[in-house]
Amino acid sequence: MTAGTLLAELRERKPLVHQLTNYVVMNETANATLAIGALPVMAHAREEVEEMVGLASALVLNIGTLEPAWVDSMLAAGRAAGERGVPVVLDPVGAGATSYRTETARRILAEVPVAVLRGNPGEVATLVGVEAEVRGVESVRAGAEPAELARQAARTLGLVASVTGPVDHVSDGERVVAVANGHALLGAVTGTGCIASALTGCFLAVGEPVEAATAALVALGVAGEDAAAGAAGPGSFHAALYDGLWNLDPATLDGRARVS
Amino acid sequence: MTAGTLLAELRERKPLVHQLTNYVVMNETANATLAIGALPVMAHAREEVEEMVGLASALVLNIGTLEPAWVDSMLAAGRAAGERGVPVVLDPVGAGATSYRTETARRILAEVPVAVLRGNPGEVATLVGVEAEVRGVESVRAGAEPAELARQAARTLGLVASVTGPVDHVSDGERVVAVANGHALLGAVTGTGCIASALTGCFLAVGEPVEAATAALVALGVAGEDAAAGAAGPGSFHAALYDGLWNLDPATLDGRARVS
Amino acid sequence: MTAGTLLAELRERKPLVHQLTNYVVMNETANATLAIGALPVMAHAREEVEEMVGLASALVLNIGTLEPAWVDSMLAAGRAAGERGVPVVLDPVGAGATSYRTETARRILAEVPVAVLRGNPGEVATLVGVEAEVRGVESVRAGAEPAELARQAARTLGLVASVTGPVDHVSDGERVVAVANGHALLGAVTGTGCIASALTGCFLAVGEPVEAATAALVALGVAGEDAAAGAAGPGSFHAALYDGLWNLDPATLDGRARVS
Repeated sequence: MTAGTLLAELRERKPLVHQLTNYVVMNETANATLAIGALPVMAHAREEVEEMVGLASALVLNIGTLEPAWVDSMLAAGRAAGERGVPVVLDPVGAGATSYRTETARRILAEVPVAVLRGNPGEVATLVGVEAEVRGVESVRAGAEPAELARQAARTLGLVASVTGPVDHVSDGERVVAVANGHALLGAVTGTGCIASALTGCFLAVGEPVEAATAALVALGVAGEDAAAGAAGPGSFHAALYDGLWNLDPATLDGRARVS
Repeated sequence: MTAGTLLAELRERKPLVHQLTNYVVMNETANATLAIGALPVMAHAREEVEEMVGLASALVLNIGTLEPAWVDSMLAAGRAAGERGVPVVLDPVGAGATSYRTETARRILAEVPVAVLRGNPGEVATLVGVEAEVRGVESVRAGAEPAELARQAARTLGLVASVTGPVDHVSDGERVVAVANGHALLGAVTGTGCIASALTGCFLAVGEPVEAATAALVALGVAGEDAAAGAAGPGSFHAALYDGLWNLDPATLDGRARVS
Repeated sequence: MTAGTLLAELRERKPLVHQLTNYVVMNETANATLAIGALPVMAHAREEVEEMVGLASALVLNIGTLEPAWVDSMLAAGRAAGERGVPVVLDPVGAGATSYRTETARRILAEVPVAVLRGNPGEVATLVGVEAEVRGVESVRAGAEPAELARQAARTLGLVASVTGPVDHVSDGERVVAVANGHALLGAVTGTGCIASALTGCFLAVGEPVEAATAALVALGVAGEDAAAGAAGPGSFHAALYDGLWNLDPATLDGRARVS
């Protein structure tokens, strides 16, 4: 199914997307989830994550401001999602920057059936064992071409890899889809990678992994292009990004997708 | 006192409103508090909540991203508020979605003298024992008309109930005030319910519960109408909402209130 | 070096600025860090703060929503920064309002080699032992003129003091620099003080303390002036503030600085 078809489906179904994400972007990913047409819920207490996962159509795990209690809850939520067939997105924010982040991402990959891994080249390369440099949460260097990196991550880890950058690459280990939508201002606002992961969760609630991951990046990229049109900088761009997501038209989205 | 009178009073006094709220909306409720003319303070450590309550003119408890340590602090802050005569607003975010949320909201209601309960129909119905469905933090179904639900909640729980929706209803168990201000885009931005609760706290610092709860919903509704006028979607609406609150005119607010 | 020279240097180097800050403003300080041209990273787990500090060019500690585990991490990060020569900014949010905040700020000052203390008059006066009143996180009264307070804080505490208000004052205990840039709307948005501290960290990564603290306040003040030009209230001002920081021109910044 195409991005446009999935977007129409998503708006029809309004799936609930459970997110255990970082403190920096909670408001932003919740608003992006609403703007695309789904319903967000943020719940992280060990006391309730399994019950909340049972209400959700997708689960997003994001380790951007991780700490032990949150990691426990992510693992519990992820396992519950696995038992109930709720698809899981993992955003390994900062893997490669500190060993705590790298090990936590690896542990989640080992214990949770992750459907889509959405990260930048440095984070994904770290998890595949390819040489990489991650400074804070920024990818500085990854020792592989992004298309090849996506394919390799998918094969090694047994999931769909969604590696974002100036051009994004989604792979299931066989085919690689490249998405060339977007705008440089997406890199000037914190949390747009996290928004990509949240939107991946939204589409994963209505589509299979490669198509969902691709649709999320097309939607965010096209919304970013629209937001940049009238923006004077990252602040006005940021506000316009939600307008852009909200105003995406399922009927014209595929015509604007730069997918190959 | 009318919404306009209370707004003038609030801007004159600039009350400090102590908020223990969720991670998703802290920035938003703080900015709404400033925009209406009050001063926000967020403090949740068990080590300081009682002392901070002592400086405040109202306390807002919001369980949107609850966990045990926060619940302990909410109970301690709530009890201290009761001892010092500081009025308390409770926003039972997601009550009915998980048992942890339902039980925590009930525990706060049992141990803290809540002046105003501000929630959506599903959350309030859950707490009154009326059949309801809450998906994540979204009200799906409540087995009672909202006006009747507000009255019943007020009577059963011994407080003022503020049940928000397309039309809001505020009741002390006898009279029911309906507020028809607002705009559909308020539902497209996360945390506008939490903002309603924060504003209720602001007005509660200067007025009695029914009038304060009503004034908060009138203020938010009118600001939402103004914000929607020039908005291209939820992002520009969200930014304009704070402009709308800031630019509310006490002299004309009552003329715009759709209260019955 | 002037603010313009430091800004050019900062944009050239893109330093990583590690921030342990409060829940209310994390997104905002991250976005301000990006908009000025640096890279933010938020990481607070005891398991990783020392390793993350090792990657950073400056560390910002902000006690706005403190709790014991965060205080431990702030102390550990601060000590690691001291060992590695990473300069530290402390924002003692709410010192003077509760004893927990006052004691925590004092403890950080005692155990961490803070380069710049950035606070409002009430907070700084509290830490110097001058009579003050802080209501929540708002300075109500400080028993000393701000210029003298900055000088006294710098001397007493052995650091550079950056005391912000309608006119800001930066002192190393000898000279006092006054910065008169800014706009009243900066006080209508939550976290602009925290943004001042984050920007101080950004400039501290490329300059010495007095110049860095001054450049940060000039940059924020000029961006605030630009943002206010087209703003209809605090919401549109807030979005425009990031545009303003992003669009600052190193070549003209010094001409707009109101420094004496």
